[in-house]
Amino acid sequence: MKESPSIAEYLTGRLKGEGIEYVFGVPGDYALPLFSTFRKGGIETINTCDEQGAGFAADAYARVRGMGAVCVTYCVGGLKIANAVAEAYAEKSAVVVLSGAPGMAERKKDPLLHHKVRNFDTQRKIFEEITVGATVLDNPDTAASEIDRLLDLARRYHRPVYIEVPRDLMLAPCRPPSTRRESEESDPQALAEALEEARQMLLASRCPLILADVELHRFGLQKELVRLTETTGIPVAATLLGKSVIAETHPHYIGVYEGATGRAEVNDYVEASDCLLLLGVFLTDITVGGSSSSFDMSRSIYATSEKLSIRHHSFEGVRLEDFVRGLLKLGIQKRVLPGIAARQTEPMTRNSARPQDRITVQSLFAEVNRILSREIIVIADVGEALFGASDLVIREPTEFLSPAYYASLGFAIPASLGAALANPRLRPLVLVGDGAFQMTGMELSTAARFGLSPIVVLLNNRGYSTERQILDGPFNDLLEWNYCRLPELLGSGRACQVRTNQELEETLQAALAQKDSFWLIEVRLNPHDRSPALERLAKRLAPQQRADH
Amino acid sequence: MKESPSIAEYLTGRLKGEGIEYVFGVPGDYALPLFSTFRKGGIETINTCDEQGAGFAADAYARVRGMGAVCVTYCVGGLKIANAVAEAYAEKSAVVVLSGAPGMAERKKDPLLHHKVRNFDTQRKIFEEITVGATVLDNPDTAASEIDRLLDLARRYHRPVYIEVPRDLMLAPCRPPSTRRESEESDPQALAEALEEARQMLLASRCPLILADVELHRFGLQKELVRLTETTGIPVAATLLGKSVIAETHPHYIGVYEGATGRAEVNDYVEASDCLLLLGVFLTDITVGGSSSSFDMSRSIYATSEKLSIRHHSFEGVRLEDFVRGLLKLGIQKRVLPGIAARQTEPMTRNSARPQDRITVQSLFAEVNRILSREIIVIADVGEALFGASDLVIREPTEFLSPAYYASLGFAIPASLGAALANPRLRPLVLVGDGAFQMTGMELSTAARFGLSPIVVLLNNRGYSTERQILDGPFNDLLEWNYCRLPELLGSGRACQVRTNQELEETLQAALAQKDSFWLIEVRLNPHDRSPALERLAKRLAPQQRADH
Repeated sequence: MKESPSIAEYLTGRLKGEGIEYVFGVPGDYALPLFSTFRKGGIETINTCDEQGAGFAADAYARVRGMGAVCVTYCVGGLKIANAVAEAYAEKSAVVVLSGAPGMAERKKDPLLHHKVRNFDTQRKIFEEITVGATVLDNPDTAASEIDRLLDLARRYHRPVYIEVPRDLMLAPCRPPSTRRESEESDPQALAEALEEARQMLLASRCPLILADVELHRFGLQKELVRLTETTGIPVAATLLGKSVIAETHPHYIGVYEGATGRAEVNDYVEASDCLLLLGVFLTDITVGGSSSSFDMSRSIYATSEKLSIRHHSFEGVRLEDFVRGLLKLGIQKRVLPGIAARQTEPMTRNSARPQDRITVQSLFAEVNRILSREIIVIADVGEALFGASDLVIREPTEFLSPAYYASLGFAIPASLGAALANPRLRPLVLVGDGAFQMTGMELSTAARFGLSPIVVLLNNRGYSTERQILDGPFNDLLEWNYCRLPELLGSGRACQVRTNQELEETLQAALAQKDSFWLIEVRLNPHDRSPALERLAKRLAPQQRADH
Repeated sequence: MKESPSIAEYLTGRLKGEGIEYVFGVPGDYALPLFSTFRKGGIETINTCDEQGAGFAADAYARVRGMGAVCVTYCVGGLKIANAVAEAYAEKSAVVVLSGAPGMAERKKDPLLHHKVRNFDTQRKIFEEITVGATVLDNPDTAASEIDRLLDLARRYHRPVYIEVPRDLMLAPCRPPSTRRESEESDPQALAEALEEARQMLLASRCPLILADVELHRFGLQKELVRLTETTGIPVAATLLGKSVIAETHPHYIGVYEGATGRAEVNDYVEASDCLLLLGVFLTDITVGGSSSSFDMSRSIYATSEKLSIRHHSFEGVRLEDFVRGLLKLGIQKRVLPGIAARQTEPMTRNSARPQDRITVQSLFAEVNRILSREIIVIADVGEALFGASDLVIREPTEFLSPAYYASLGFAIPASLGAALANPRLRPLVLVGDGAFQMTGMELSTAARFGLSPIVVLLNNRGYSTERQILDGPFNDLLEWNYCRLPELLGSGRACQVRTNQELEETLQAALAQKDSFWLIEVRLNPHDRSPALERLAKRLAPQQRADH
């Protein structure tokens, strides 16, 4: 009879079962046996410069692979990733937070052990606010079933969970559960009724449209989306958060919808539609431009993992995946719908940019767009990097990552670690502003250490450009680094500064050709140069701030 | 009649009233009007590379000045400083967390506004766990009295508070309270009874000892401590967290007490004492060496801001400051107590280190000790930097800062920003390992931008040395940076690598002479070289880990 696994061994096995090959983190005394057990069990540990980087990397890994994990020590490690985990919660990414902790025997009489904040449950309580489940494995008899329960929650909701492991129980034998929980199913009658109503609305509409968002990524429904649009002829728009949920070269794809900040032709199409099929959509202020009133629910079918509403009524117990798959079986015949051909996304063109001209935001994104391929995953940080990236034409699903709703600066460079390890076929192309780079850019050290080779395009516009549009002051300024000296500091990688379109093109080609290290390409931009999307956003936000004064 | 101030203006005035001249932070759209109002009101805003740096800087500012402030945007900023604020909570530092937030009008119908995690109160709930008070200024009529209440809490408990300001109310007029709350006083009868009992115990003792900790710093009782030891003759030991609460050159000072990890002569003195006067002490695993049993409460008078116990009974309603000042009035006559003369801290000597020899941990700290003066504040990060620093002889109170209990890596460099701005007379001397440096060392960018000039001694022992002692693996390795290239990256500062004692001495002298920029001195150490304190700690921790396997 096989010996019982320890709690740490059981955890390792279950993480591997979920497809996790790498755990990100920074070790600490309460967590060391976890790091050691992962390695023995075949999971590689990737230690980042700071825990924050590990949090973002695990989030990106989860976005690409379905689940990711981060391992930290108690409080001094865990609380450093509160923001990254909150982002994973907000944007639905199944990050498993593993924290070492003081042993249960050590906790008696509530002593002041190092790293403790207020009570021994302070960290757990904090993570309860930003996860769908938080547990302390304080009992070897129930630890294995708790691990199963938490991983089930992460997989079902695509949101983070928190598992705290007291150090005196990490290596205690546990009792693996004999049966696995069955997954929930939809209420068949509610599902049938909702599908029939959706069918009638879609058939009666003259100008239906699918608005697809990030939950289709998370729940692995990208192929179903393609089949749905191809069998019915209904065109597709995506939100910025959901960008690349369908290849943006698909003939039925009309572009990114961003409400008041988006391009007029996509907005017009959405507003003219008499039947909006919102699939996995977050109705955020970014998506709908600060006002949900732009969506007329009377003409909407709104399906997410949390709710299903048709017009003004809702259905209980219908899972997103069942609803989407059900739509495929409705036998809606293909129609050629008006306007699609004219509204296809045009590949971005360089317009009048000449090789010797200074790079502009527009010419930069045109050149980036030109080099995109199925081997590249674009990761955009927040700010101009994201606004400009919204118009890129992404070739394949899941090849674009960005925190487009939660919008935490500093995501992209550490995320490139997670994305590259989650899918080694893809090379990350990171778009990042100087403000975000100064937060987490040093995680290129981790890329160097583990042989990863992101191409980083650093938009240097000398400060927080997005904020300058709203309210300017010296607090939007930064020290200007000589970014190109970074490879000398790290003893690895390549960097150069580019000013003209020709320099940019040549450097991007060189970076694509050399795959053995990271590349940092600093693009010197005029601080007053703006992407069209940023201009629109600033116009929307500025009056509100002015009215405050 | 004077116009009513806005909420932001009232807040600015109250912060200035508490002695706050600088607010640390990173701006964001929800917080911009706060940044702007601070500047108009004469508080300078210091934006760091990442919010984490701002959190640590504000903590250090509070440790030196009594109160500090950090201003961030909603969630994406606030949650990045959860760890730094937790540290301030754990080690009693009055950090005022100011967060911009969505406007109250925007929150109706609970929309998905950017930066929101789960509910609009998610961030506040998290900060409730790590502060002594958290509020949302959602009503202009009560906002001013709420600000007063929260600042009173911060001042009274020397712990962080959280003030969230919805952006649509920041500039709304508020109503300043007509009367200020009176501060609480001690129960006079309990105080008198406790003092009388303490007097009798002290008089009856043959070998009394004061163990002084960080609360005496926080409550500004350093001078009272000096008077107490000088008028009574009772010698003083300090904890590591409280190190420098009394000048370590004082003839009555016997050294740092660190329980099982500390020096034997101090431990012996503590254990031989028949009356321990514990003033403002945190009984942590660091202080008492992992076991509180080393303190015999039958011979202890234990006074903190939270409780007062004598032997095995406790008193309610006695404030620490009243008790300490009361002790001075007991008329305890001065005695010459045995052993003090012999037990005075000897200045560290270089022992047998020769100029051309490779630097060892011991010779490094001996040299650092030699250059200490009243113009230097030592800031030690966690790990070998702190263990080695424990034997430094600090000349004056409040000239040593370290997170010696909470022990979060990455504190020291951002803390040097806060310390230097809190007391421009002091030049920070930062002791930091390579692991901690890779977390937050880039905040030297902020030092460069604002003209600060810390001297950073980087102990490069290639990885997480403290953890290697416990359980080693590749997760304790780091990429080795060419740290001396940092000034080229930042376009500011000076750096060099030193290997011999002579190089170290010359470089430290050069750094002391040139005060116009930061200095980064990379000390190449043998990774197997250990400070005596780390050896002792590792020995204590290692058996526990081995027993786990």
